[in-house]
Amino acid sequence: MLKPADDSFAEILRNRLPEGAFRPLEPRYLEEPRGRFQGQGGLLVAPANTAEVALVVRVCRDASVGVVPYGGGTGLVAGQVMPEGPAPVILSLERMNAIREVLPEENVLIAEAGAILENIHTAAEAAGRLFPLTLASKGSARIGGNLATNAGGVNVLRYGNARDLCLGLEAVMPDGTIWRGLSRLRKDNTGFDLRNLLIGSEGALGVITAAALKLFPLPAARATALLAVPDPQAALSLLALAGDLLGPSVSAFELIGGQGLAFLAETGLRERPLFDAPTPWCVLIELDLTESDDPSAPLEKLFVAAMERGLVEDGLIARSEAQRNEFWDLREMLPEANRRIGSISSHDISVPLGAIPEFIHRAGRAVAGVGPLRVNCFGHMGDGNLHYNIFPPAGKSRQEFETDRPRLNRLVHDLTHELGGSISAEHGVGRLKLSDLQRYGDPVKLAAMRAIKNALDPTGIMNPGAVVPTENRG
Amino acid sequence: MLKPADDSFAEILRNRLPEGAFRPLEPRYLEEPRGRFQGQGGLLVAPANTAEVALVVRVCRDASVGVVPYGGGTGLVAGQVMPEGPAPVILSLERMNAIREVLPEENVLIAEAGAILENIHTAAEAAGRLFPLTLASKGSARIGGNLATNAGGVNVLRYGNARDLCLGLEAVMPDGTIWRGLSRLRKDNTGFDLRNLLIGSEGALGVITAAALKLFPLPAARATALLAVPDPQAALSLLALAGDLLGPSVSAFELIGGQGLAFLAETGLRERPLFDAPTPWCVLIELDLTESDDPSAPLEKLFVAAMERGLVEDGLIARSEAQRNEFWDLREMLPEANRRIGSISSHDISVPLGAIPEFIHRAGRAVAGVGPLRVNCFGHMGDGNLHYNIFPPAGKSRQEFETDRPRLNRLVHDLTHELGGSISAEHGVGRLKLSDLQRYGDPVKLAAMRAIKNALDPTGIMNPGAVVPTENRG
Repeated sequence: MLKPADDSFAEILRNRLPEGAFRPLEPRYLEEPRGRFQGQGGLLVAPANTAEVALVVRVCRDASVGVVPYGGGTGLVAGQVMPEGPAPVILSLERMNAIREVLPEENVLIAEAGAILENIHTAAEAAGRLFPLTLASKGSARIGGNLATNAGGVNVLRYGNARDLCLGLEAVMPDGTIWRGLSRLRKDNTGFDLRNLLIGSEGALGVITAAALKLFPLPAARATALLAVPDPQAALSLLALAGDLLGPSVSAFELIGGQGLAFLAETGLRERPLFDAPTPWCVLIELDLTESDDPSAPLEKLFVAAMERGLVEDGLIARSEAQRNEFWDLREMLPEANRRIGSISSHDISVPLGAIPEFIHRAGRAVAGVGPLRVNCFGHMGDGNLHYNIFPPAGKSRQEFETDRPRLNRLVHDLTHELGGSISAEHGVGRLKLSDLQRYGDPVKLAAMRAIKNALDPTGIMNPGAVVPTENRG
Repeated sequence: MLKPADDSFAEILRNRLPEGAFRPLEPRYLEEPRGRFQGQGGLLVAPANTAEVALVVRVCRDASVGVVPYGGGTGLVAGQVMPEGPAPVILSLERMNAIREVLPEENVLIAEAGAILENIHTAAEAAGRLFPLTLASKGSARIGGNLATNAGGVNVLRYGNARDLCLGLEAVMPDGTIWRGLSRLRKDNTGFDLRNLLIGSEGALGVITAAALKLFPLPAARATALLAVPDPQAALSLLALAGDLLGPSVSAFELIGGQGLAFLAETGLRERPLFDAPTPWCVLIELDLTESDDPSAPLEKLFVAAMERGLVEDGLIARSEAQRNEFWDLREMLPEANRRIGSISSHDISVPLGAIPEFIHRAGRAVAGVGPLRVNCFGHMGDGNLHYNIFPPAGKSRQEFETDRPRLNRLVHDLTHELGGSISAEHGVGRLKLSDLQRYGDPVKLAAMRAIKNALDPTGIMNPGAVVPTENRG
């Protein structure tokens, strides 16, 4: 049984850590962006270095006090907020935000877990390099959290997700020992893959304190287009064609539905229509090029080939950085439009690429069976990752459909599961999807997860209730 | 304590499996390519499907009989051969060699563990796709073994190692349950990363029975060059320059030492010198291109830029497929030349890219301190992975230097470790490097490995004595 981080426990920690490690527990540490989970308190500790993190974890382990690692607080599945149970230590990495080293010739950057993602971008660019992991919350998300949740974003198609961009980790294990695995190696086959076990474990197996990250050459140019496609099947064929014609230069392939464009108009986020005729679907495609002369040429080639095959109906190629930004704004305003309209339920799913058209078709039919609802389906099609959000009809509010949420959740996830998909493509499990994982997860994998959790964290102090249910342990 | 797979145990299995699952134990199942380990016997079982694999493992678990998974038998660290302990079941995947599915539009291929690597290449190519994992033993290596050892090879620089090329796994766990994780998803953040835990675990945590693999577009053209460089530092700068100028098209960057070229001449494998003047080092670089017009142009651009910077002294760009093959033959004959000369010790190490010049310099000095030995250093420089092999002086035999081997092993590995490198870059630990891993491995990682092994395989039946020492368990 875990114990609360009460006054006497705080006293123990205060005797062993500098005063600077203790900060006021502002409300933001108990909240999460979607407002569905609310922390009940805890002791906020912000260590200055890895040794202090190790000390905190050791003291917590000895006292059976839970530890909730806290990065930028931008996670969408409440991995960073513990709404029940004895008050934990909230272990914020905010003071460990140094970029320790940039090695452009090796294409490596070493950052502490609390480094803000956007600052890592800046440091890489200053050395003529690209760190390609990027997402909407880059200005506040911290790399430790990005790795703990194996963050995705818009560049996964070409560069991979957080997991693929990490060469080595330094981490504090649940017993307070420090794993010094900050390797810069591209190849290392010495034993079980502890790095990938910690990445994506959402703080349930340890606290990441620093990471060695992969850098890439900065693209000499970027080329960006919006292509109107008749349906998701055409978008899928366009993706394959782009791979054949343009190879690894395709860095983003985002699907945008006509409903999303309509939402932008409805919410006033964008007045002017993009294409002459309304389009049911469009694709935002971007290339990272190593040549800067005539960057539009490859997209023109793709456009012509796709027109010949009937895959696209119209298209716009960005002729300036301003136009490129306009295209991306369109994509990136979709979440804001969704927020303004107010979704009944939101889903971060992935299915095998070939199953995307079937998923969209069948999910649409099933949702229509519940009522005259609207669906904004968009996302990282190149990765098979769709954000599938369901809204009330025009003029109605989400509150009227509150009781439909569990049913909608169930039908979207049932279909995802039937098609061999994942109910959490890039956001993680956290606490929000804990019961969904128990329902849909492979039982052998779930058993292995429990065994590993018990083996590495027998006291169950690490992020209690996240990813692995507390009741099944011990 | 493990028990032998004796006659009465065999009887139990024979009663539960079809006759076809039992094959004669030919000597090859007890040997490994370097001839340093010799199996002492065992019961050879070759199941026809995953259910039979699960049955075998369950029966072994119940009887505390060891299981040694056996793929193509090409591993270089004796993961496939158990030289001591009670006779195990040797579980060969050779009958499970089907390619279950090829999905070119999704860039996915699903193969059983016993599929031979080269057959996977062929099946992918027939669908207009590339499966890029390739290594010298591709004609006999099986994909299950490639994954279990996280195989590398010459294309890691661009496409990653076996781990990076796998989307999902089906595997039998040490308790005989079947993990159905044959996902085709590019993104799936639902819980701990069991896939990567099994990949590279060398059979010590379960038996891989099938895998979903990533395919890529076939390159429209390839461009290949041999560039003479003055020293390893120049090779390193050339690698960075190639990245900047040519981006992700660089698919191979292999370092070849002058000693290797001399060995080719000495063994009669290649008479004609390549360059007008002997070169101390050269680099084989290859590009996978999406455009087929003028494939040499990017290499010419690189050559000119590198000449300007003093990084290359001479160069040959392949003008035909025959010339391309000639360059690759040169690289691929090096292991045969090494075998003919007879090495005293061989090492598969990696260091951070930036440390390669220092490693080569200091290792060379240290080896010279032992005696007038010759070093053939070559390998996958783009990944920081060098094969560092030490030979007797001309006219002497390796036998005269047998007693120096431990000292040489130690000095190469000590230096590797000091520079933050790995004593096993791509071959794995198996049984050959078990004590090296105990010496050089991070103690916190080793403790986590033991805990995970005990949690998932409490009886210790899975590949006993490989990767994790038996004496430290239980």
